[in-house]
Amino acid sequence: MGVCTPKQFCPVLERPLISHTLQALERVCWIKDIVVAVTGENMETMNGIIKKYQHKCVSLVEAGVTRHRSIFNGLKALAEGQPNFKLSKPEVVIIHDAVRPFVEEDVLFKVVVAAKEHGASGAIRPLVSTVVSPSADGSLDHSLERAKHRASEMPQAFLFDVIYGAYQQCNDYDLDFGTECLQLALKYSQTKAKLVEGSPDLWKVTYKRDLYAAESIIKERISQQICVVVDTNDHEEHVVGLLEKMLKNQLYHIRITPGPLCLAGGEIEQIILQQCYSFVCINVMTSDLQETVKLLNILEKSNISILYPVVVISVHFLKCKAVPIGQKMESLMRIREYAKEMKRRNIFLFGLLIQYPQDKQNLEENLQQGATIITALIKERNSGLIGQLLIA
Amino acid sequence: MGVCTPKQFCPVLERPLISHTLQALERVCWIKDIVVAVTGENMETMNGIIKKYQHKCVSLVEAGVTRHRSIFNGLKALAEGQPNFKLSKPEVVIIHDAVRPFVEEDVLFKVVVAAKEHGASGAIRPLVSTVVSPSADGSLDHSLERAKHRASEMPQAFLFDVIYGAYQQCNDYDLDFGTECLQLALKYSQTKAKLVEGSPDLWKVTYKRDLYAAESIIKERISQQICVVVDTNDHEEHVVGLLEKMLKNQLYHIRITPGPLCLAGGEIEQIILQQCYSFVCINVMTSDLQETVKLLNILEKSNISILYPVVVISVHFLKCKAVPIGQKMESLMRIREYAKEMKRRNIFLFGLLIQYPQDKQNLEENLQQGATIITALIKERNSGLIGQLLIA
Repeated sequence: MGVCTPKQFCPVLERPLISHTLQALERVCWIKDIVVAVTGENMETMNGIIKKYQHKCVSLVEAGVTRHRSIFNGLKALAEGQPNFKLSKPEVVIIHDAVRPFVEEDVLFKVVVAAKEHGASGAIRPLVSTVVSPSADGSLDHSLERAKHRASEMPQAFLFDVIYGAYQQCNDYDLDFGTECLQLALKYSQTKAKLVEGSPDLWKVTYKRDLYAAESIIKERISQQICVVVDTNDHEEHVVGLLEKMLKNQLYHIRITPGPLCLAGGEIEQIILQQCYSFVCINVMTSDLQETVKLLNILEKSNISILYPVVVISVHFLKCKAVPIGQKMESLMRIREYAKEMKRRNIFLFGLLIQYPQDKQNLEENLQQGATIITALIKERNSGLIGQLLIA
Repeated sequence: MGVCTPKQFCPVLERPLISHTLQALERVCWIKDIVVAVTGENMETMNGIIKKYQHKCVSLVEAGVTRHRSIFNGLKALAEGQPNFKLSKPEVVIIHDAVRPFVEEDVLFKVVVAAKEHGASGAIRPLVSTVVSPSADGSLDHSLERAKHRASEMPQAFLFDVIYGAYQQCNDYDLDFGTECLQLALKYSQTKAKLVEGSPDLWKVTYKRDLYAAESIIKERISQQICVVVDTNDHEEHVVGLLEKMLKNQLYHIRITPGPLCLAGGEIEQIILQQCYSFVCINVMTSDLQETVKLLNILEKSNISILYPVVVISVHFLKCKAVPIGQKMESLMRIREYAKEMKRRNIFLFGLLIQYPQDKQNLEENLQQGATIITALIKERNSGLIGQLLIA
C-alpha cells in the first residue's frame, strides 16, 4: 500500500477501515461475539477504536506472527472460555478479514448454513486474471485454465470442532507458511468445504487504490437518502416541489424524505434511526438560521454522526431586489461560526442562497443550479468547504 | 460492472477510459502505431473519441467475437499492410487491454526487451487471493500454493512472427475459449515467455469500484503540481509566501511554480507544457479579475484542458474594514459569468476572498483556511461548484 499505517487502521472517511468491517458484522443480529486478533503494539489503538466508535460484543486476543497463528489464538479464546472473555464455544465460527469491510449478511448467512451442513464453507469469486506457473528461471511453465479455477475469498465458516480440531493438529510449517483455512479443514479434519459464490464487494482492500474505491463506495451509499426539512407555507410549495424534483434527477436512487413543518413530533428522530446522513433544511418563512439550528440540535443529540460525517445544507431564498445580495450574504455569515462548532461533532454545515427572481425561467435555472450544488456537497462530503455560503 | 456502457467507454473524469489508455501508450515515443479492435457498432463512438481527444497514430480494425479473434484481426492489419492502414510489419508487437490505463513506459520497455531476447514476454503480479479448484459438486477439490503461482497481467510483448505464426495455427477452440496469448506462443511457436514483475497499477478496471479508484488516482496525479501566479508588490510578499507554505503542508508532494508578475514572457506557456492542471491566481495589486482573465485567455489558447479539467482559483484579499464584505462580494460576482463560459472549455473557475485583518494571528488563521479551501477545490475538481466565491 506504500504507507506506514497497517492497512486495517487506514482511515476511510476518517474512520479506520477495521471499524467499518466491525460495523458490517455487528449489523447481523445472529452474530454473537466478535474476536479480533491484534498485535501487542496495536492493542491500545484497537481499544481506542472500539471505544470511540462504540463497537459492541468485540473481544481482543493477541495476534500471532502469522495469519494462521492469529486465527488459532482467536479460536482458543472461544474454545476455552477464558475468564476474562466470558465467551462460550459456538457451534459455528466465521473467519473473516479486517480489510473486507463490505461483507453482507446474505453471504455470511450462506456460508454459515453451508458450514452447518458440510462442516466447512468459503466464499469464492471468478478469477479476474489468468493464473500462470513460472519455472525456476522466471519463464512461463504453464498457464491454468481460468474456467476451472476460482479465487478463494472471505468470509469462511466452519463447525467449530472441525476447524479447531484442524488447527490443533497443524504443524509449524502449516502455521507459518499456509494461507488457506479450507485446506487445513480438508487435510486434518477430512472436511470438504462447500464453495459459495460471493459478490464483487467481498474484495480485499490491498492497495492504495482500494482505499480510494472503499471511500467512494461508502460515500455513495450514505448519499442515497436525503431528508428535506421544509419550513414552508402553501404559497411557496411549488418552488420547494420543483427543487425536490431536480434533486431526484441528479442523485441516482435517491429517496427524499420530506420532513415535518416544524421539526416537531419526533419524525426527524425516526428518519435518523433509518440511517439518513444527508439533510437539506429549506427556509422559506424565516430569513435567518433558526430552523437549521433546531435541526442541528436534534442531530447533535442523536449521535448519528459517530460513524459517518453528516451533511446539513441550510437553503435560503433571496426575493426580488428587496435586499441587496451583499447585505443578505452578510446576514447569513453567522453560519460560519455554527459550522466550526458542528465540525467537532462530525456534522458538515453549508449554506445555500438561491436567488428568487419574478421571471419563471430564471427561477428554474437558479433552482437547477441549487440542486447541482446540493448534489455536489452531499456526494463529496468535503470538510474543507464547511461554513461556506454558496449562491445559485 | 452493472452498467450498460462497455467498460472501455465508461467515463473517468468525464473522458472514456480507453482514451486514458491510448494517452498512456502515446506518451511512449518508441511506440510507432496503435491498433484498436472495435466492434462495428462502436466504430463511430471510437472515431469520435479519437477526434475529440486528438489521439495520434491510432488505426481501427473490426473486433472479432472473442478476445483472441480481435487480437488476430489486429495482427493481420499489421502483417499485411492493408492499403487503408499504411502500417508496416513491426519487429515487436505489444498486446494490451483497453481497460488498463495506468501502464507505464518502464514496464512496456521491460516486456519489449524481454520479447526481443526470448520471443515472448508478459507482466505478472503476485496473487491477492488463494486460487482453489472446485470439484463438480461445488466443493473444494484442492487449493493451489499461492507462492508458486502468479496472476498474468498485461502488457505482453512478442516478436511479431512468433505471435502471428501462433495465431495462424490456432484452431477454433483456441480462438473461442482461450484466454492467454502466452500459452498460444508456447503451444504453437514453442516459445517460453519471459515473465516480468509489473507494478500494482497494471490492474484491470473490471468493477465499478475500479472506476472509482481510477478516477481518484488520476485526480491525485493531476493535483500534484500547482502553478501560483502572483500579481504582487514587495509589501505583500510575506503574505503570499505564507499562503504558499500552507499549501505545501496540505497538498502532499506538491510542486508550487510561482508565476511571473504579469503573465508575460511565455513562462506560463512553459508551465502548461509541463502538464500543470491547477492554477492559483493571487491578486494583490488589483481589486478585480483582470489578471485572472489574462491567465484564462492563455489557458484557453493552449488546449491544455482537452485531456483533463483545469482548475483556476482567483484569490482576492479584503483589507480591514475599508469596504463592507457584502459590497466586495457583489463586486466579484462577475466571476460566475466567466466560470460558465470557461466550463465549456473544461476549465473550472472558482473565487476565493481572504479577509485581511490587521491582527497577525487572525490573518494567519484566514490564510490557513484559504489554503484548506484551495486544496479541497483542486483535489475534488467538482464542476458543480464552479463560479462560487468562497470566503476565508
